[in-house]
Amino acid sequence: MKILLQVAKESLAWSQALSKWLPEAQIFSGKGVASCDYAVVWHPPAQAFEGQTKLNAIFSVGAGVDGLLSMASLPQHVPLIRMEDVGMADQMAEYALYIALRHLRQINKYEQDQRAIRWDPQAFRPRSSLRIGVLGLGTLGGRVAQVLAEFGFKVSGWSRSPKNLPGIQCFHEASGLDRLLAMVDILFVMLPLTLETTNLLDEVRLSLLPAGSTLVNLSRGKIVSESALISALDSGVLAQAFLDVFAVEPLSPDHTFWKRTDIHITPHVAALTPPDAAAEQVASKIRAMIAGQPVTGTVRRKFGY
Amino acid sequence: MKILLQVAKESLAWSQALSKWLPEAQIFSGKGVASCDYAVVWHPPAQAFEGQTKLNAIFSVGAGVDGLLSMASLPQHVPLIRMEDVGMADQMAEYALYIALRHLRQINKYEQDQRAIRWDPQAFRPRSSLRIGVLGLGTLGGRVAQVLAEFGFKVSGWSRSPKNLPGIQCFHEASGLDRLLAMVDILFVMLPLTLETTNLLDEVRLSLLPAGSTLVNLSRGKIVSESALISALDSGVLAQAFLDVFAVEPLSPDHTFWKRTDIHITPHVAALTPPDAAAEQVASKIRAMIAGQPVTGTVRRKFGY
Repeated sequence: MKILLQVAKESLAWSQALSKWLPEAQIFSGKGVASCDYAVVWHPPAQAFEGQTKLNAIFSVGAGVDGLLSMASLPQHVPLIRMEDVGMADQMAEYALYIALRHLRQINKYEQDQRAIRWDPQAFRPRSSLRIGVLGLGTLGGRVAQVLAEFGFKVSGWSRSPKNLPGIQCFHEASGLDRLLAMVDILFVMLPLTLETTNLLDEVRLSLLPAGSTLVNLSRGKIVSESALISALDSGVLAQAFLDVFAVEPLSPDHTFWKRTDIHITPHVAALTPPDAAAEQVASKIRAMIAGQPVTGTVRRKFGY
Repeated sequence: MKILLQVAKESLAWSQALSKWLPEAQIFSGKGVASCDYAVVWHPPAQAFEGQTKLNAIFSVGAGVDGLLSMASLPQHVPLIRMEDVGMADQMAEYALYIALRHLRQINKYEQDQRAIRWDPQAFRPRSSLRIGVLGLGTLGGRVAQVLAEFGFKVSGWSRSPKNLPGIQCFHEASGLDRLLAMVDILFVMLPLTLETTNLLDEVRLSLLPAGSTLVNLSRGKIVSESALISALDSGVLAQAFLDVFAVEPLSPDHTFWKRTDIHITPHVAALTPPDAAAEQVASKIRAMIAGQPVTGTVRRKFGY
């Protein structure tokens, strides 16, 4: 078995992990490699699939596949299989919990107070007083919503198709989105990037948020209009934003986001794919395919995820 | 029944809460009040107990009683009863979890990166990679240790007397403290302030911490030597400190702590006593005492807590 490995970083760790879980496989990286049976990719170069005419499947080892789907050279009739949860949902929930606790305990105010040399304790606030909205209730967004609700926050969620999750007020369709936006203190963006979600949060939608709310984007930068985000911060609709993802990554050094104290930047680290667990999942799916069994996680290209 | 109420803030809320749970009581505040049966106090003025010769009990509505015990005018032979947990342990654990998550997810590094306009994602770190020490395993410290251990962090604890807590490596006595200090990435100070714990963390003990560790003080400022703390930060033994408590509060505007970016200051808000739940506890203890039943939470003055 020949495997094409094209990952933009940690190439050695991925190679070792695949060899561990598929000891019978030969692993090829770089340019002009042999014709392979399977491809394992993350941010592959544009020519990654050149001459690869025998691929049985392409495994994407990130949670989102919008980047792959936009590649002109992506083979059209080979099954594209995305990573299913190998700890990323827990990482997302952990990061979301950090931000929610920071908000509940008014750390932003106390940081400002320290800079102003001001001692000004605030009264106790119960967790149920914090209204959290989660856009996207799939594997990652669903876990974020569930963990925050179990912790005692008041959680609402929105998804394309109707959902029913315990302890979470669920909305769907455009009208449901508008209703949710009007009632949250923190909004978590956990949606996949598709044609429908591109610029979903534009000036009109962001203006529906209560004044002084917080926006958190942990999925894809292009879902939130950058100019609308800046306007919402400047007008006070948003008090602050936590951004882990951006329309173009890495974020350009001359981008206006870097200098703003009301934007908290992290470099796309909310959930990282652990190579070992991911390789184990890829190996088990390859074995299932060889045995003629169905595998989960195949991308429905018409939906874009 | 006459109750003396002497609290340094939220006096109206306390008065209403006591009236709700003890409707038969008359509540007195301020100077030169009638001789009362019970006192409910938090940071009372020096003359609070003048002329109070009939008190059956004094209820302290904070978790720590070091301030009260140091008052020369505190009646010596009246039972002093401290607040038992009315949600403060959960608040402490919530705040500790915020700091632990912040550390695990390397937010401090990413904040520095943002100021330096640097995009530098770090690899995944499992929760079990973070070694947390908790000094003090009473109601508050014990809950902090338990919640952090259940979350998956590697937790050690230290207390005056030997303890045995599930999932937590427990130490006691001075030698146990030295061993714990040498093996933690974050140290939470959750001890009561007594003669024994005053300046417990001095220059010698702080120097036992691994280089680059983090100190968090959520109990009493005087347990950590301020000069030793500054030296440990300057030498790199400590990378940062989170301080909610200080030797003198409010922290003086000209104190050097305010200006340091490696010290995170909050104004004694890690756990706040909610007046309603606290008044309910005081009321139920007063009824038990009237009925001749024993009550828990009586301060053992020789231990200082």
